[in-house]
Amino acid sequence: MTATPPELARFSINQETVRQLSLPALAEACGELGVTQAGLWREPVRRYGVEAAARLMGDAGLTVTSLCRGGFLTATDPGERRRALDDNRAALEEAAALGTGTLVLVSGGLPRGSRDLRGARERVADALAELGDHAAAVGVRLALEPLHPMFASDRCVVSTLGQALDLAERFPPDQVGVVVDTYHLWWDDQVPGHIARAGSTGRIAAFQLADWVTPLPEGVLVGRGQLGDGCVDLRHFRSLVDAAGYRGPVEVEIFNPGLWARDGTEVLAQTARRYVRHALG
Amino acid sequence: MTATPPELARFSINQETVRQLSLPALAEACGELGVTQAGLWREPVRRYGVEAAARLMGDAGLTVTSLCRGGFLTATDPGERRRALDDNRAALEEAAALGTGTLVLVSGGLPRGSRDLRGARERVADALAELGDHAAAVGVRLALEPLHPMFASDRCVVSTLGQALDLAERFPPDQVGVVVDTYHLWWDDQVPGHIARAGSTGRIAAFQLADWVTPLPEGVLVGRGQLGDGCVDLRHFRSLVDAAGYRGPVEVEIFNPGLWARDGTEVLAQTARRYVRHALG
Repeated sequence: MTATPPELARFSINQETVRQLSLPALAEACGELGVTQAGLWREPVRRYGVEAAARLMGDAGLTVTSLCRGGFLTATDPGERRRALDDNRAALEEAAALGTGTLVLVSGGLPRGSRDLRGARERVADALAELGDHAAAVGVRLALEPLHPMFASDRCVVSTLGQALDLAERFPPDQVGVVVDTYHLWWDDQVPGHIARAGSTGRIAAFQLADWVTPLPEGVLVGRGQLGDGCVDLRHFRSLVDAAGYRGPVEVEIFNPGLWARDGTEVLAQTARRYVRHALG
Repeated sequence: MTATPPELARFSINQETVRQLSLPALAEACGELGVTQAGLWREPVRRYGVEAAARLMGDAGLTVTSLCRGGFLTATDPGERRRALDDNRAALEEAAALGTGTLVLVSGGLPRGSRDLRGARERVADALAELGDHAAAVGVRLALEPLHPMFASDRCVVSTLGQALDLAERFPPDQVGVVVDTYHLWWDDQVPGHIARAGSTGRIAAFQLADWVTPLPEGVLVGRGQLGDGCVDLRHFRSLVDAAGYRGPVEVEIFNPGLWARDGTEVLAQTARRYVRHALG
């Protein structure tokens, strides 16, 4: 295992950035580069086995910085809602087993046929209330992630950091935090104030990086850019989050078929270099 | 010409919604349906001839509710910036010739390679300062349109109604107003307050309707939904704008290849019916 370069001390690779790598291949690539932190996703972890994944990460000296993702808490149908809550309880247990204190939540979009954004946001709050004690009991924080407004109807009715904080602040800070993701928030001129507010109330549960590039692909889900390829001032964002008192991992999470088509270890190495060049200093 | 049904008194059809119709065909279709207002676009108007278009509209009893569009005012290159300002001065003259008091402005995106959103927004303000007197002199208001944040990098660095108002309020209300377009603003929980603010300061220059539907197409430009096909609470929006004191036209502007592939007169009739069903009452 390579010693961690000091400039990568806070760097974490989100598994989805290099989804072409199996969990063992990810662990090996991280070892070669001196990367010591990774954010994981539930589906590949469950396929590998949660306990086995936890052992693999531990044996490789890797800290799991977050688990993606719970959420999808906006259903009005009682059965669907109960299943979603059960699934989030399972996700909390998985996060705890992996040793991460952060479960990323994507709130969910509008139910089919609904036009009631406010009601959907209130159902997210209701769900956080139902999950909060469980989260605290297993030492995992529910990290509410605002997604870009282009996802407001079909994925996430929480569109700004301000909205996420309005929801999170109804609960104790050890139960509910927020995710600051540059891809989703870069356009918002209110975000410096929101980041300061999130920091002062101890709510920043995760900080994630991706760049904004156009044209957006159909469906807009997998159009994120490698760091430095787009128009987000990543260094400025990092300085805002640092100034707000955040000292945790900086996780790079990019969904991009171009990156997925290449050698995963090479993409990881490039991502680490880009992180140093565009987010540090 | 059919008498205008009372429920269509404020209805205006934006030309781009039925772009398959030539200007004379649009005028004829409006006459058949009793539609008395239309928003026009510069390119088809210039192809037809500005004076000829003004005569055609007048002869058909049609009021031009807006001209789309000026803007694209964020260039840093001096030559490009001068050309953009000249083009906007020409657009003001065209609007005046058509008898509309509203020139819709799309601010422009980030120059290639730039990450400076704040600087780009300031250049928009500088351009409004340069254009304001000309606008007042010809009796046309510069109507700054916030576009959805998914267009922030490549089309419009003004992403919220709050940002648009912050810019507009630096200038006299007869020179600079804002456009309230449901497609761009529907996701924003701050928008009721912004609409009230825009109304109380006399800034609402135009009110446009389109619905939000997914999945978004590649490039995300022409993915707007026919009224009622998506998740925007159009009636609520209209009630907010009315409560803010706006009494002007309600213009339907939908970019949708599915609508463009159909008979334009039939699309216009459908749009008017949808307007009555989903935006009134």
